[in-house]
Amino acid sequence: MTLLFREEPQAGTLPVTPVPATLVRGGTSKCWIFRDEDLPADALETDRLLIRTFGSPDLRQIDGVGGASSTTSKAITVAGTDPDGTVRYRFAQVAIDKPAVEWASNCGNCATALGLYALHAGLVAPTGEVTRVPILNTVTGLRLVCEIPTPGAQVPAYGGRRLDGQHYPGVPIDVIFQKSSWSSYGAQFPTGNAIDDIEVDGKRYQATLIDAGAPAALFAAQDLGLDATGSEEALEALVRIAPKLRAAAACRMGLPQDLSSIPKVGIVGPPPAGATGVSARMISMTALHPAIGLTSAVAVAAASGTTGSVVQRSVVPAAEAGLFIHLLKGKTALALDAADPAEVSFQRSARVISESTILVPSD
Amino acid sequence: MTLLFREEPQAGTLPVTPVPATLVRGGTSKCWIFRDEDLPADALETDRLLIRTFGSPDLRQIDGVGGASSTTSKAITVAGTDPDGTVRYRFAQVAIDKPAVEWASNCGNCATALGLYALHAGLVAPTGEVTRVPILNTVTGLRLVCEIPTPGAQVPAYGGRRLDGQHYPGVPIDVIFQKSSWSSYGAQFPTGNAIDDIEVDGKRYQATLIDAGAPAALFAAQDLGLDATGSEEALEALVRIAPKLRAAAACRMGLPQDLSSIPKVGIVGPPPAGATGVSARMISMTALHPAIGLTSAVAVAAASGTTGSVVQRSVVPAAEAGLFIHLLKGKTALALDAADPAEVSFQRSARVISESTILVPSD
Repeated sequence: MTLLFREEPQAGTLPVTPVPATLVRGGTSKCWIFRDEDLPADALETDRLLIRTFGSPDLRQIDGVGGASSTTSKAITVAGTDPDGTVRYRFAQVAIDKPAVEWASNCGNCATALGLYALHAGLVAPTGEVTRVPILNTVTGLRLVCEIPTPGAQVPAYGGRRLDGQHYPGVPIDVIFQKSSWSSYGAQFPTGNAIDDIEVDGKRYQATLIDAGAPAALFAAQDLGLDATGSEEALEALVRIAPKLRAAAACRMGLPQDLSSIPKVGIVGPPPAGATGVSARMISMTALHPAIGLTSAVAVAAASGTTGSVVQRSVVPAAEAGLFIHLLKGKTALALDAADPAEVSFQRSARVISESTILVPSD
Repeated sequence: MTLLFREEPQAGTLPVTPVPATLVRGGTSKCWIFRDEDLPADALETDRLLIRTFGSPDLRQIDGVGGASSTTSKAITVAGTDPDGTVRYRFAQVAIDKPAVEWASNCGNCATALGLYALHAGLVAPTGEVTRVPILNTVTGLRLVCEIPTPGAQVPAYGGRRLDGQHYPGVPIDVIFQKSSWSSYGAQFPTGNAIDDIEVDGKRYQATLIDAGAPAALFAAQDLGLDATGSEEALEALVRIAPKLRAAAACRMGLPQDLSSIPKVGIVGPPPAGATGVSARMISMTALHPAIGLTSAVAVAAASGTTGSVVQRSVVPAAEAGLFIHLLKGKTALALDAADPAEVSFQRSARVISESTILVPSD
């Protein structure tokens, strides 16, 4: 049969590299976890491999394992385990619309996935009824601990924790941030104060400048003439002024001036009527964040017990040692070990979805 | 540490079943291919396994391998190979928003993926420079042949065919429908005529009733007072009358009356000015289809050479033995082996993306 549209003969066999990877759901994200030993030594080559593996650039990622959304185009590469048991890793956000990988951010969901993977893959041995897996993002310096039930010192294949908005349950993972390691630049309060005045355009605003989880500048909503329970429209003024607030706060905190993403900027105020906790609205770069990142939530929680902080002044205490942060959409719950916490923890779940060998074309 | 929100202790280890599966891109879809021997014998259990594997019901399919779109929530199950080399399979469209699997349709993209998989998995041995892989969907009865270059009788790991709108190339797969097997209900022209009158609401419309690829009722656009190159808005009248046209055509063709999806209904007319081929607008159930299904395209092509058919009367012939079908969005190209074709073929490409073991919870 003679075919119309037959192109020139093609190379039938071009090199394809098999690369082992494990797909793990962590929280509300899916994460592909690789081992450094299976990836190229060269950083640009690793980027290229991840881009090709996920099928980018393509809004549908149809020629790869990517899920065509920001929460399903994520990877972790694991370097190994330190003598003290800490799992060293890097987190990669693989762009969808362009051939690019971004390594400089954190993802709490993927950290959750890594905790389970470390047990699943034998990087960490289960110890007793509960195993704590410390992990370190070697790019950002973020340290946290995943606490995972391992009854009878067995690695859980599956679990029954079902969280709001999730159809299927998974292995319970508590993601724990510790005061001993949650400051990126040295001190929890870089200025030594629980509250500072930040001056922008000739006006002064009260802020708590804190380095916990991530560096954050938390402003008192009332100072900005705002209500922290306000709608998206009501907070447009905050979005407009946020870059100036961030720059001024970075200067006061002694942070690098060239990072547009730190400190995190947000406002806090009292919770909605009848509720406990605090309200918060965070600015993600130049837009209102519908929720709050895990690391920013640590900053809010860490400040909640410090007398005089903008958070502590707004908190309506709960009977339990926990804190609700009320957001534009929904709320986040976290547990504290004390009023002035040494540990802040979140409930998540995770599940190992598949163990794969991905075939990566060399072109 | 005492955690707030700690739920009751969970079963640490619930049963998880490992199931082998291969992810293959075919055309513009991704398809997970399973072997019947790895699936439950019970049909309902297989449905349950696929639903859980893909992470449905969940618009994001976050707890499974599904890609959260209709083109990335597809599966094939392979029964095996007949003595004559035909690969027997079923195609499953896994619903995203509900726990359901639909087995009654065909997917040309997944058929393409299966052709490559059959070579890749050793179900079919490569023969010479080009290997033909006949496949049979045992649910719908659809038979077609995948023609795949196998230079030096080697299975291609990758290929260089890059089609319109695709960022990455793949192994060239020609998808070929053969006249000897393309009629689902016996005869290519069930009424014995190249053209029939269909009466609806007291009016008569000329149609070619053909069973090729899929049963189809192709109406002359001018008969409906329409222009087959018309816009979505101009064709609203066609969408409204289509269920009646379908029912009347099904009756004349002797088809079952309880299938709302067959015959396929569409209108054909001359191509846009200066172009060769035909124009066509198909109705997918109760809405205008932006393009045309592979099987409906076979129906149009099969009718193109039959004197007096509504297609043949509209065709502007090309110099080559091929046909362009001009659609609401873009056009489809297919090759014919003759004016009255015994074979109709399409160019596609495919790539094996990963070989996986999927861990399926038993709950």
